[in-house]
Amino acid sequence: MPNASIESLIKQFAKLPGIGPRSARRIVLQLIRKKEQLMLPLIDVMQSAVEHIVPCEVCGNLDTQNPCNICTDTRRDDSILCVVEELADLWAIERSHLYNGRFHVLGGTLSAIDGRSPQTLNIASLIERARDFAVKEVILATNATVEGQTTAHYLTEKLADCNVTISRLAQGIPIGGELDFLDDGTLGAALKSRHRF
Amino acid sequence: MPNASIESLIKQFAKLPGIGPRSARRIVLQLIRKKEQLMLPLIDVMQSAVEHIVPCEVCGNLDTQNPCNICTDTRRDDSILCVVEELADLWAIERSHLYNGRFHVLGGTLSAIDGRSPQTLNIASLIERARDFAVKEVILATNATVEGQTTAHYLTEKLADCNVTISRLAQGIPIGGELDFLDDGTLGAALKSRHRF
Repeated sequence: MPNASIESLIKQFAKLPGIGPRSARRIVLQLIRKKEQLMLPLIDVMQSAVEHIVPCEVCGNLDTQNPCNICTDTRRDDSILCVVEELADLWAIERSHLYNGRFHVLGGTLSAIDGRSPQTLNIASLIERARDFAVKEVILATNATVEGQTTAHYLTEKLADCNVTISRLAQGIPIGGELDFLDDGTLGAALKSRHRF
Repeated sequence: MPNASIESLIKQFAKLPGIGPRSARRIVLQLIRKKEQLMLPLIDVMQSAVEHIVPCEVCGNLDTQNPCNICTDTRRDDSILCVVEELADLWAIERSHLYNGRFHVLGGTLSAIDGRSPQTLNIASLIERARDFAVKEVILATNATVEGQTTAHYLTEKLADCNVTISRLAQGIPIGGELDFLDDGTLGAALKSRHRF
């Protein structure tokens, strides 16, 4: 059995998402073996993240500055606001380099089962931002899950009197997707939203 | 795109074994979101590991003391020495609670392809320990891979004049294993080592 100090290191790593006790052991072994190349740099970047990363008060993004670099970027289009559930979704859209508007991170979805009410999400600040004259369109880019859809419906109601166009991401066959492997829901959505070729 | 500080955190996590860029992103998001519960404790245990964990000069184990707690444990049997490739193998045997002798961690295997010669492993110290009058048996518990077998053969030669019994772990069908799913090599080994019922 590893000693107590190593054991607690393994336990701490096993708490991270997607890491079980076995991978935690592998990681810890590697870290201890390569102390200079892996462990010390990892401690450094984590410590600097703890010190410098703050949430953006405007959009909920995380950055070393507040408001974040997306909110302060003057080259971005003020007229479009893209609403996402989580920071990871914001990153995914940013990676695509296809969107040049502003963001708003909700911080999750509504969920009656898990007890996440509208008050736990950044909804009040979203409505305030949507009331701004500059904003013409709000894209509800929540996930295509039940919770994501529910949240989008709720937001549509809330944004009704804000004088903005509300849009959703299109649903259909993913690029490279094969009909044979698609679930019925996706196939149905693709059929329903078919367009003239 | 995440900002530079988060980006370097993700990059550092993606260097760990078994973690790709996607899981690194998930982990980092979780760490930043749960700074108090996850990130700070992780930094703490890593820092304490960096400060306190040292390799054992006798057996190659890692511990907060040198010689390690296995080498200094007086209740253990001095007459058996179990030779393993890596620390993870030592932990695996310790988890089984079935072995009460001493250990010797080689720190890898011989490999002509990867250029790992006998000098890079803890072999000299193993032979020195095997020469001790107390040691009666050396168990070569290297993996059942080509490199592990090669290393075991090399060690057998080296230990020939040490006046110890040299043994290997048995090979055969794993407990719960089904013949239909076994590879030919394992099946062959199990057949060859069959015993009277």
